[in-house]
Amino acid sequence: MSKKLNIVIWNEFRHEKIDPVVTALYPNGIHAFIKDFLKEDENLNVTLAALDDPDQGITDELLEQTDVLFWWGHMAHGEVDDVLVEKIRQRVYAGKMGLIVLHSGHHSKVFKSVVGATGNLSWGRDQKEVIWNLMPAHPIAAGIPDHFTLESEELYAEPFYIPQPDALVFGGWYEDGFIFRSGCCFLRGAGKIFYLQPGHEYCKAYYNPYIQRIIKNAIQWAKPADFGYEIPNGAPQILTKVTDEFNN
Amino acid sequence: MSKKLNIVIWNEFRHEKIDPVVTALYPNGIHAFIKDFLKEDENLNVTLAALDDPDQGITDELLEQTDVLFWWGHMAHGEVDDVLVEKIRQRVYAGKMGLIVLHSGHHSKVFKSVVGATGNLSWGRDQKEVIWNLMPAHPIAAGIPDHFTLESEELYAEPFYIPQPDALVFGGWYEDGFIFRSGCCFLRGAGKIFYLQPGHEYCKAYYNPYIQRIIKNAIQWAKPADFGYEIPNGAPQILTKVTDEFNN
Amino acid sequence: MSKKLNIVIWNEFRHEKIDPVVTALYPNGIHAFIKDFLKEDENLNVTLAALDDPDQGITDELLEQTDVLFWWGHMAHGEVDDVLVEKIRQRVYAGKMGLIVLHSGHHSKVFKSVVGATGNLSWGRDQKEVIWNLMPAHPIAAGIPDHFTLESEELYAEPFYIPQPDALVFGGWYEDGFIFRSGCCFLRGAGKIFYLQPGHEYCKAYYNPYIQRIIKNAIQWAKPADFGYEIPNGAPQILTKVTDEFNN
Amino acid sequence: MSKKLNIVIWNEFRHEKIDPVVTALYPNGIHAFIKDFLKEDENLNVTLAALDDPDQGITDELLEQTDVLFWWGHMAHGEVDDVLVEKIRQRVYAGKMGLIVLHSGHHSKVFKSVVGATGNLSWGRDQKEVIWNLMPAHPIAAGIPDHFTLESEELYAEPFYIPQPDALVFGGWYEDGFIFRSGCCFLRGAGKIFYLQPGHEYCKAYYNPYIQRIIKNAIQWAKPADFGYEIPNGAPQILTKVTDEFNN
Repeated sequence: MSKKLNIVIWNEFRHEKIDPVVTALYPNGIHAFIKDFLKEDENLNVTLAALDDPDQGITDELLEQTDVLFWWGHMAHGEVDDVLVEKIRQRVYAGKMGLIVLHSGHHSKVFKSVVGATGNLSWGRDQKEVIWNLMPAHPIAAGIPDHFTLESEELYAEPFYIPQPDALVFGGWYEDGFIFRSGCCFLRGAGKIFYLQPGHEYCKAYYNPYIQRIIKNAIQWAKPADFGYEIPNGAPQILTKVTDEFNN
Repeated sequence: MSKKLNIVIWNEFRHEKIDPVVTALYPNGIHAFIKDFLKEDENLNVTLAALDDPDQGITDELLEQTDVLFWWGHMAHGEVDDVLVEKIRQRVYAGKMGLIVLHSGHHSKVFKSVVGATGNLSWGRDQKEVIWNLMPAHPIAAGIPDHFTLESEELYAEPFYIPQPDALVFGGWYEDGFIFRSGCCFLRGAGKIFYLQPGHEYCKAYYNPYIQRIIKNAIQWAKPADFGYEIPNGAPQILTKVTDEFNN
Repeated sequence: MSKKLNIVIWNEFRHEKIDPVVTALYPNGIHAFIKDFLKEDENLNVTLAALDDPDQGITDELLEQTDVLFWWGHMAHGEVDDVLVEKIRQRVYAGKMGLIVLHSGHHSKVFKSVVGATGNLSWGRDQKEVIWNLMPAHPIAAGIPDHFTLESEELYAEPFYIPQPDALVFGGWYEDGFIFRSGCCFLRGAGKIFYLQPGHEYCKAYYNPYIQRIIKNAIQWAKPADFGYEIPNGAPQILTKVTDEFNN
Repeated sequence: MSKKLNIVIWNEFRHEKIDPVVTALYPNGIHAFIKDFLKEDENLNVTLAALDDPDQGITDELLEQTDVLFWWGHMAHGEVDDVLVEKIRQRVYAGKMGLIVLHSGHHSKVFKSVVGATGNLSWGRDQKEVIWNLMPAHPIAAGIPDHFTLESEELYAEPFYIPQPDALVFGGWYEDGFIFRSGCCFLRGAGKIFYLQPGHEYCKAYYNPYIQRIIKNAIQWAKPADFGYEIPNGAPQILTKVTDEFNN
C-alpha cells in the first residue's frame, strides 16, 4: 500500500514546440503540465516521456516499472513504433499497467489496439463544452459536481466508434448541437483503460480543477489490482484436476 | 478519509436459535461471526441487527448513519416490513449506503426490490463448490487466487433470474454438474450492490479466508462515493440555463 | 413466427381530456395516436388501455395475452394499483412480456419497480432537442440517422438516476446546455425494457417519423424470446444431478 | 429483407487433412460440416474458405460481399496474413460484417485484434461439458434449454482473459472442476462478434442440434444492422452546426 505508484506521462510533444499558441499554454509540454498538478501527491513517482526521446520515450526497463501510462498524441500517430504498441497492449492486458488515453489519443495506435476500435468520430471548431456527471458513484467521478463548464474545447462529436464502454462516467454538451461520451472506462484482459476527451492543445482543459481531479481519480482507478495470483502469459496446459484437490 | 465506516450486519437470526447444527457453527449468529472477522480493521464500526430486534433491528437513526448494510435472510423474508425495505432501497439509490446481500438473501424483499429481479434460481444438496475468479482486476477480487474450494456449500444453480450484472466477478462450479454466478456487482441509482452466493447456514463458507477477504473487499467497493454534489431526492425543476452560466 | 404480437398501449389519458393544447395534439389520446402509426404492420394486434378504464385498463386476461406493454403516465402515478404493478413486474421478469416506458413514465411505479431505480432527473422548459444515435448497430437504431432534431420537447436533464443501461442507444442534446440518456435498454429477469425519453404531452415527438421508427424497432427488440424451456416461477428444488445424465 | 445473407466460413483446414481421427469426424473440413447444417436455410448463401486457398481464402472481392464471417483456426494462427486481419477488423468495426469466432479461434489474430484481448486461457483433456443457458431471453439462446450436455469437449478453463462480454449467454461446466464463459457477445465499433467455445476438432460439438441452433441464431444476431446512414471511415471534420439546422 505504501509503495509509490510509477506514472509515465507520454506525450507526442510536437505541437508545443512549433506552435506559439500551444507553447504559451503548455511551455514544457502537456505532459509536464500534468506532472506539475500531480506533484502534491507524494505517492506518485512521475516520469515524462516523449515521441522524440530515445526509444520513443519508453524503454523496456521503464515500461516494466510503469503502473499507469498516460498517452497524448495527435499529429504523429503513424510514427509510433508498432512493436512498442504491442508491448504496451500486452502489459495492459496482463493487468500490470493501467492506461489513460487523453483527447486526440482516441486515434492513437495504442488506443485503437488496446481497446479494439477505429476510434473514429467527427470534430469541429473550439467552443464551450459542458461536462455532465453521469455516474456520480463511480470512483473517477469522486468530488466532481453534477456538471462543470470548459470555456473552450475542441468539438468531438458522436457517433464515436467505440465499443459501448464498461462505464460511461461523463458526457459532453457542445454549443453547436453536439454531444460526446467524454469519459469512458474500458476493461481489457486484466487491465483498465480510461479515455478522457477534453485536452485540446489550443485549450486550457488541463488548467481546470475538475479535470485535474478526474485525472487524479483515474490514476487510482486504473492502477494495477492486487492480484491474488500470477496472471499467465499464454495458454498453459492443465495437468491436474480441481476435483483431485478434493481428496487432499 | 479518516472517518470510520459504519457497517450494519443484518441477519434474520432464526436458524441459529432453533437448529443445533447451525448453532454449533455460528453460536452468536452469522452476523456476529462476520463482525468477528472484521474486527481487525480499526476503520470499521460494526453494528449487529436482527429481525427480532425492536424495529426489526434497523431504526431510522441507525439507517441514516449506515454506510454499508449486509443482508442475510432465508426463512422469514415475508416478515420483513415493506416500509423498511423501501427506506433501504431509497438510501441505496441515493448513494448514501452500499448493500451486500449474502446467500439466501437472493430471495429477500431487499434484494428483489433494490436490484429489480425475481431472484429465482434452483437449489439442491450441499456439496463441494469451486469458486472461480473471473475478473482478477476487480477490486472485490483483490488478493483472491484464480480459484479456491469450499468443502461444502448449498447448491445454487443457473439459470439465476437476475439482470446481467454490471460486473461478474466470481463463478461457482458444483460437483453435481451445475454452475452459478456466485459474485455479482450491480449499480442502482447512485449506489452499489454486491451479491455473494456462498454462506449457507449449515456450511462453513464464512470460515474461509478467501470468503472473508471478498467480504472485506466488498465493503470498500460498496461504500458511498465521495460525491461532488448533493444527490437530489426527487425531480427538481431546472430554473436556470447552463448556457446562462457562460455569460457570468 | 407468423403469430401476431399482442401490444397493449397503456396511457394515463388525463392530460388529453383536460388541457385543450394536449387535446389538439392527441385528440384520442397519446395511446391512440401511437396505435395509429402502428396500424400498417399487420402482425401487430394493438389494444388501448387507460387508467380510468375498469381494472385500470389491464385485466388479468388481457395481461396474460400481452407480448409488449407500453406505459405512458405522468400526473397520476400514485393512483396506479400496486397489485397491478407487481403483476406487470412478474410478467416482465418471467420473460413473457416486453416493456416500453415512454417519457414521464420514468417516474411511474412500473418503471421504478421493474428497472430498480428512483428514476429521478431534473426537468425544465420545452426546447429544441437533438437526438444522437450512439449505437447505430443496435436493432432499435435500425434506419435511424446519426442524428435528428425535435423542434420542441420537454427538457429532461442528467444526472438521470438509473442504473447504467445494458445498452445506451440514444443521447439527447438540449439548447439550454443539458444532455440526457434518451434511449436506454435494460435487461431484467428474462425480460427486456426500453425507455424512450421524448414524448411530452405538449409536444409533437410522436409525429416524428424517426421516433415512430424507434418505437416500431423497440417492439421487435422487446418482444418475448423464443425460450427453449419454461422459465420457472419460484426456486425449484433440484432432485437430480446433471452428472447422472451422463450415465444414460 | 429478402436479400440473402452472404456467409463465409473460414477454416484453417489443416487438422482434417493430417489426422485420421479428425478426418473421420469432419471429412470435408469443419467448415463444410457447418455449411451442411446451414443448408436448410434458403436465405443463406454460404461460401467456404481455407488458409491454404489462394489469398488465404479471402479475396478483397469476397470480403466486400461478406455479411457474416466464421473463423476456426488452431495450429497455424501465425501464418494468417496481418493485412488480411486488419481488413477483417476494419470491416467489422464499420458494421458491414458480423464475426463468429469458434473454439480455438480465441487465440487467432482475428479474435485478439478485433475484440482487444490476449485470449489467454488454460486448457486440458477432453471431457464432458454441460452448457448452461445464462441469458434465456437473448436472441442467441432462442430455442435452447436451460442446459444441455456435450459428451466430450476439450477443457477450456477460466480465467479467460477477455474483456467482460457485452452479453454472457452461455457458461460451461466441466467434469474436472472447471468452468468457462462459453458463449460471449462483444460489440466493437458498429459491429458484433460472438465467441462460441465448443468445437474441438477431435469432438462432435458441431453434431449437436443445440450447438447448430446456437450457430444459426448467432448468424441472425451478428448480421449487419440496417443502418440509417453511412458509417464513416475516418474522422470527418464538421463544417456545419446542428444549431444552424434549427433556422431552416
